[in-house]
Amino acid sequence: RVLSSRSMASKTPVGFIGLGNMGTPMAKNLLRNGYPVIATDVFPESCKELQDTGAQVVDSPAEVAEKADRIITMLPSSPNVIEVYTGPNGILKKVKKGTLLIDSSTIDPAVSKEMAVAAEKMGAVFMDAPVSGGVGAASLAKLTFMVGGVEEEYHAAQELLTCMGANVVYCGQVGTGQAAKICNNMLLAIGMIGTAETMNLGIRLGLDPKLLAKILNMSSGRCWSSDTYNPVPGVMEGVPSANNYQGGFGTTLMAKDLGLAQNTATNTKTPVPLGSLAHQIYRVMCSRGYANKDFSSVFQFLREEEGQ
Amino acid sequence: RVLSSRSMASKTPVGFIGLGNMGTPMAKNLLRNGYPVIATDVFPESCKELQDTGAQVVDSPAEVAEKADRIITMLPSSPNVIEVYTGPNGILKKVKKGTLLIDSSTIDPAVSKEMAVAAEKMGAVFMDAPVSGGVGAASLAKLTFMVGGVEEEYHAAQELLTCMGANVVYCGQVGTGQAAKICNNMLLAIGMIGTAETMNLGIRLGLDPKLLAKILNMSSGRCWSSDTYNPVPGVMEGVPSANNYQGGFGTTLMAKDLGLAQNTATNTKTPVPLGSLAHQIYRVMCSRGYANKDFSSVFQFLREEEGQ
Amino acid sequence: RVLSSRSMASKTPVGFIGLGNMGTPMAKNLLRNGYPVIATDVFPESCKELQDTGAQVVDSPAEVAEKADRIITMLPSSPNVIEVYTGPNGILKKVKKGTLLIDSSTIDPAVSKEMAVAAEKMGAVFMDAPVSGGVGAASLAKLTFMVGGVEEEYHAAQELLTCMGANVVYCGQVGTGQAAKICNNMLLAIGMIGTAETMNLGIRLGLDPKLLAKILNMSSGRCWSSDTYNPVPGVMEGVPSANNYQGGFGTTLMAKDLGLAQNTATNTKTPVPLGSLAHQIYRVMCSRGYANKDFSSVFQFLREEEGQ
Amino acid sequence: RVLSSRSMASKTPVGFIGLGNMGTPMAKNLLRNGYPVIATDVFPESCKELQDTGAQVVDSPAEVAEKADRIITMLPSSPNVIEVYTGPNGILKKVKKGTLLIDSSTIDPAVSKEMAVAAEKMGAVFMDAPVSGGVGAASLAKLTFMVGGVEEEYHAAQELLTCMGANVVYCGQVGTGQAAKICNNMLLAIGMIGTAETMNLGIRLGLDPKLLAKILNMSSGRCWSSDTYNPVPGVMEGVPSANNYQGGFGTTLMAKDLGLAQNTATNTKTPVPLGSLAHQIYRVMCSRGYANKDFSSVFQFLREEEGQ
Repeated sequence: RVLSSRSMASKTPVGFIGLGNMGTPMAKNLLRNGYPVIATDVFPESCKELQDTGAQVVDSPAEVAEKADRIITMLPSSPNVIEVYTGPNGILKKVKKGTLLIDSSTIDPAVSKEMAVAAEKMGAVFMDAPVSGGVGAASLAKLTFMVGGVEEEYHAAQELLTCMGANVVYCGQVGTGQAAKICNNMLLAIGMIGTAETMNLGIRLGLDPKLLAKILNMSSGRCWSSDTYNPVPGVMEGVPSANNYQGGFGTTLMAKDLGLAQNTATNTKTPVPLGSLAHQIYRVMCSRGYANKDFSSVFQFLREEEGQ
Repeated sequence: RVLSSRSMASKTPVGFIGLGNMGTPMAKNLLRNGYPVIATDVFPESCKELQDTGAQVVDSPAEVAEKADRIITMLPSSPNVIEVYTGPNGILKKVKKGTLLIDSSTIDPAVSKEMAVAAEKMGAVFMDAPVSGGVGAASLAKLTFMVGGVEEEYHAAQELLTCMGANVVYCGQVGTGQAAKICNNMLLAIGMIGTAETMNLGIRLGLDPKLLAKILNMSSGRCWSSDTYNPVPGVMEGVPSANNYQGGFGTTLMAKDLGLAQNTATNTKTPVPLGSLAHQIYRVMCSRGYANKDFSSVFQFLREEEGQ
Repeated sequence: RVLSSRSMASKTPVGFIGLGNMGTPMAKNLLRNGYPVIATDVFPESCKELQDTGAQVVDSPAEVAEKADRIITMLPSSPNVIEVYTGPNGILKKVKKGTLLIDSSTIDPAVSKEMAVAAEKMGAVFMDAPVSGGVGAASLAKLTFMVGGVEEEYHAAQELLTCMGANVVYCGQVGTGQAAKICNNMLLAIGMIGTAETMNLGIRLGLDPKLLAKILNMSSGRCWSSDTYNPVPGVMEGVPSANNYQGGFGTTLMAKDLGLAQNTATNTKTPVPLGSLAHQIYRVMCSRGYANKDFSSVFQFLREEEGQ
Repeated sequence: RVLSSRSMASKTPVGFIGLGNMGTPMAKNLLRNGYPVIATDVFPESCKELQDTGAQVVDSPAEVAEKADRIITMLPSSPNVIEVYTGPNGILKKVKKGTLLIDSSTIDPAVSKEMAVAAEKMGAVFMDAPVSGGVGAASLAKLTFMVGGVEEEYHAAQELLTCMGANVVYCGQVGTGQAAKICNNMLLAIGMIGTAETMNLGIRLGLDPKLLAKILNMSSGRCWSSDTYNPVPGVMEGVPSANNYQGGFGTTLMAKDLGLAQNTATNTKTPVPLGSLAHQIYRVMCSRGYANKDFSSVFQFLREEEGQ
């Protein structure tokens, strides 16, 4: 097969749409790697910051599509993605044949599939490439990308994604990047709440929290939340629980991802009893003052003493 | 402090009560290490097997207590422990002052504490030392012991326990061995069901199970059930899921341990929402044909297709 | 306000789309009340049955819309509704200004709102009017309709709905009919599973099931599932539990409605912990041989003895 | 069968142990009905109040047992019951043959059975007779008693219980009174949380709360919590939700009863998924400031808006 002219000319401009907390450092890493960036966002201030770093700012996704044949989008949720791709000033209104579209938003895989179909009708290629890792990892180009889409285009995507991340994993057909992301975060939430419950129970039964963590971590109860991101203050350093649950991955974001997992499970008739209950717990926490704390604050939520 | 005469005379007889699937290989490992064993069990056949290996068999726990000043008990559940220690022919009817009593059963920590109080009244010392690891680990002396009790006696206990296990961990006051065991198994159950749900959801969304396991294991969804004991047939070798969920740790036993966790949480007013739901799921599985399968069969339980 | 010509001419033809188990008897009741019916369905056999009863059968929803200015739709799920209204041969392709569109399907209220917006653009009026009551109630014109839509059109809708149902309740703006239906069925499912658990627990504790039902029904545990539709065989006559859980409201249908409740709750960020768990339980039941049994069979699902 | 001398001499003294919020008005109703009362409690102030109303106060349960051959106990929890019956100054130390012992505490049915066995050894008869209804019902002699024990003694118990309650229901063997109470309260908790979730969801979907309650109450979602004790402020008058969740049945008490249900279910290997989750929800509420509010405040707990 002949490589497309697109992937040959690697330092031609790259479009970037969505300059939020994650998108801005990601776009900066493209600039740092020598790619001209043509960007847009609904918030002018966000555009200003990137412009100062050397990007060309334009008025709409459609205009980005006129000027770049590789475009990355990083948006908050499914409706934004639908608007940016298929809206009146959307990418697909002006997209050139052969354009590579990479969506790094975390959204419903069914929407990714719809966008891929719509892109294909215009002769473009859509891939989903959601990330794991937060703002810090975005700044340091340490993100992990989980990529779904036609395998032939994976290498072209990889070229750009490696400028912004440390790991790029090919997951399969369109939507499987989202699937992998959603699955990981559902299991993460279950493990975190489970760890919080377990640590709390152990402490009430007289165990020292550091000792309990050590025992779990050498046994079959071990998980990422117990050995790398322990939710109990005093057990580990350098994690949000050591800093009053500031920073990290907010409860609101976890609730959003669990909502996607829930919708996806419902639509595929897949039973996810613990995933579903985890979703409800983070949903309640959002309503009770934990929205902006790290998701490991579920330990605090469950623990607070009676009468306080 | 002066070492007790007991721990000085290390090859004096050791009592062993409870010769089931676990107790028998444990007692054999004491014999193998040169300790004379004085044993009893309610089932004569079990006694016969150990007698043939060189143990002296007597009629009751009380009689064991007359002849040994170090006694290990390995029993199915709390009522058995209460009977063997405080029943009419129980250990405490004849126990000698200074005797070391080590209970390796998995029971409610509140019962361990009661037994410790009752033993102390007779001048004896009670420690709880439940195990993790199954029949295979018991035979190979690879068990892990989690030990609760007065710290001064821990070394005396350790001397015997290292004959039967590879790890011996001191957890704190009486009951904390049980607490550690129960906590670990609760988190294990949560991680296993979570892994089963997640793998099932990912497969339905089009992900290859081996690839999904790989992604989880390099990410924050990682847990012992995903990386060491994956419940999906075909993902790993040498685990129960590779062998139709034969062997391993049965659903009935997991349901029992989760029942202990539930009771303990209720009694200490500790919320354990996922632990509680995990208990209910294993309880339903016990009623629906999964009682004797490995606890990773929750993947099969959740997965079975509609119409089948 | 001037009454529309439509509601004046009450015996002009009524369109009916969706001739399934529910739609067919509903359409027959319109015929019985003297309304000419113009009908269509994707399954020719269903059309044939209604044609034999006197309806005019046409080829597509669009054709129905050409010939009737009052149309009722009764379809299995959201995608069918979207297709029948907005598809290439859909109602809105040919709908006349002022047409009254009544959708009795049970679907996501968000889809009802979308249809209402689309209908309004064509000058038509859309109302949602899902039903409670099964095939028997549909045949006997004993259904309950929960109606959402602009209040001015409610009386016009009521005229037709009273031919097919015993109760017609106006709920508010478009989508609130669906909301009321979904809410009722979520609470119904919770009450049913709760009743099944409670009766099972009471029986295991030595209570006679009829006596327990009587005590609950005179106390604060009382609910529709305990006093009108008890899930325990032998407690009541004339309910599915007295007939091996045949007939009634199938587990699959309940799982579908709980999926709608779940999606709606997720989209509105509303915590529904018990509703969510009820959904999961019915989802698992669908996978384990209960798909076509009445939803009260959850008693049997939870009860089955160990070892069986 | 010959009536015992006890039940013939109906106005001989009645013992009463446990003079808390419930016990005091219950004992007063016995006095009001002409029964001499011999009472005791660990709190002297409680004794003083009843003494002023005409009761004879003694120092210990054992002393009550010396002076009365019918004794009622009303205590907070299982350990108190065990102490009052079998402790060093307990009833059974001095109980006369043929004494009727009626325990109105809400406790684990297994403890009731133990007490019955212990009483029988002393030639006395033990019955469990927990109540439903709160302090108001206790004052007005409007309680409901659920009675377990040997049927021959039921009428003797009924004679006293009708002085304190409006309904007395015979449930079967010892422990079934507790079973009925626990079962009712578990289903009540499930219905209440379910009603709170449903009302909250409906309101968010645009339904008027009064209208939604009306629809549920004429449909299959109907339950005691929706039609008699609605948790949404403004829907009903004269219920705790109309009074900022003051009064009524406190969250702590509901959590206690659900803990009993949970322990009982665990011990009988009965799956109670919703009952178990209801327990966890009330347990979390106790830790988060709802301990002393009426249990219908779960509506408020689930509802509180994000950002507040």
